[in-house]
Amino acid sequence: MTLGRVIGSVWATRKDEGLNGTKILIIQPVDLNYDVDEEANPVIAVDSVGAGAGEIVLIAQGSSARQTKLTHNKPIDAVVMAIVDKLDVFGEAAG
Amino acid sequence: MTLGRVIGSVWATRKDEGLNGTKILIIQPVDLNYDVDEEANPVIAVDSVGAGAGEIVLIAQGSSARQTKLTHNKPIDAVVMAIVDKLDVFGEAAG
Amino acid sequence: MTLGRVIGSVWATRKDEGLNGTKILIIQPVDLNYDVDEEANPVIAVDSVGAGAGEIVLIAQGSSARQTKLTHNKPIDAVVMAIVDKLDVFGEAAG
Amino acid sequence: MTLGRVIGSVWATRKDEGLNGTKILIIQPVDLNYDVDEEANPVIAVDSVGAGAGEIVLIAQGSSARQTKLTHNKPIDAVVMAIVDKLDVFGEAAG
Amino acid sequence: MTLGRVIGSVWATRKDEGLNGTKILIIQPVDLNYDVDEEANPVIAVDSVGAGAGEIVLIAQGSSARQTKLTHNKPIDAVVMAIVDKLDVFGEAAG
Repeated sequence: MTLGRVIGSVWATRKDEGLNGTKILIIQPVDLNYDVDEEANPVIAVDSVGAGAGEIVLIAQGSSARQTKLTHNKPIDAVVMAIVDKLDVFGEAAG
Repeated sequence: MTLGRVIGSVWATRKDEGLNGTKILIIQPVDLNYDVDEEANPVIAVDSVGAGAGEIVLIAQGSSARQTKLTHNKPIDAVVMAIVDKLDVFGEAAG
Repeated sequence: MTLGRVIGSVWATRKDEGLNGTKILIIQPVDLNYDVDEEANPVIAVDSVGAGAGEIVLIAQGSSARQTKLTHNKPIDAVVMAIVDKLDVFGEAAG
Repeated sequence: MTLGRVIGSVWATRKDEGLNGTKILIIQPVDLNYDVDEEANPVIAVDSVGAGAGEIVLIAQGSSARQTKLTHNKPIDAVVMAIVDKLDVFGEAAG
Repeated sequence: MTLGRVIGSVWATRKDEGLNGTKILIIQPVDLNYDVDEEANPVIAVDSVGAGAGEIVLIAQGSSARQTKLTHNKPIDAVVMAIVDKLDVFGEAAG
């Protein structure tokens, strides 16, 4: 999964009917200190957990993005499937 | 999903029969300001939403590209599945 | 899909039985002017459309590479599924 | 598969219900000498084999990450599926 | 598919039961002259064709890696599915 911060959302009226009612988020990948990963482009992902602006989340990509009730059988290749409380790295805690 | 601009189309007479009747677009990835992402190659994707030249769209890739009525069970690894109206980034609106 | 030029083929006697009778091509990715993309490695892909040496083709990758009659259920992650006649970019035609 | 070292874990209370009871690890990709691969970002992966801090493991990604009893049909795109005892490279043994 | 040379193997006692009896190889990606691709990391892949040390092979990745009898339904994202005899590039033969 990819670690990132919710930085925005996408508005799209004309879209595959499978996306009706979904919230499409813009996620900026971050490193283990929650700093922006300058080399990684933002990921556009459907929200399945009610993630809010600024929250640190996990994104599942590829066919795994369709393994939530909300995204099943839909043309979606990235889903926010967890909101991160904290990271434990070698005994240190971030977040 | 990937954000991009429709910059052209592909003509192909000899192709897998599953592609008959599809429109194959050339999409230039763009950043959140809709500027060209110089490091990203154009993506060749089948249109499922009637996207026109110059429009900003979302592309789903991998097996998720086959989750529209038009692309089901076809040898297609990228599909345009939404036309973007605008992006909201931290309260700012692009587009 | 990925745009490329057919530059060679692979001979392999010992292989998964699913590959028997397939033609395995070497494809050099190219840009929209059909110039070599120096940063992209050649892709090894099974031919499903009778592509010949030097032709410009489209490649589908991942599970989508298995969505042709020839490649169904086989351990193949890239397939040539169209031969390009021309590209239309912003009203200009390449090819 | 990807070779990496277990360097931490992720805490997430709000998540897809499929992740309940899973342990989410942070894995730093390493090279064949077990040195950190500076160009590779950490991978967030679900543990299926009881991997501990500091251990060298293999990660399967994409849909293959869902082919364990623990991860079946879940929105998970990376799984730790083996703990490495040693590598044999050209007759030399690392680890 | 990816072209590479078999340079070693991985020993792992604790692993998903689906990997029991499989041979896990380390493959160094190579270019069309069989020279090491310095920018590509080694790939860890399950052998399905009896590839030996030093041989040039093809690797299928992603869900396609599970389309051999040996790897079906297993948490494996890369498989060696062919041993290369030679490459024909523009009429020249390597190997």
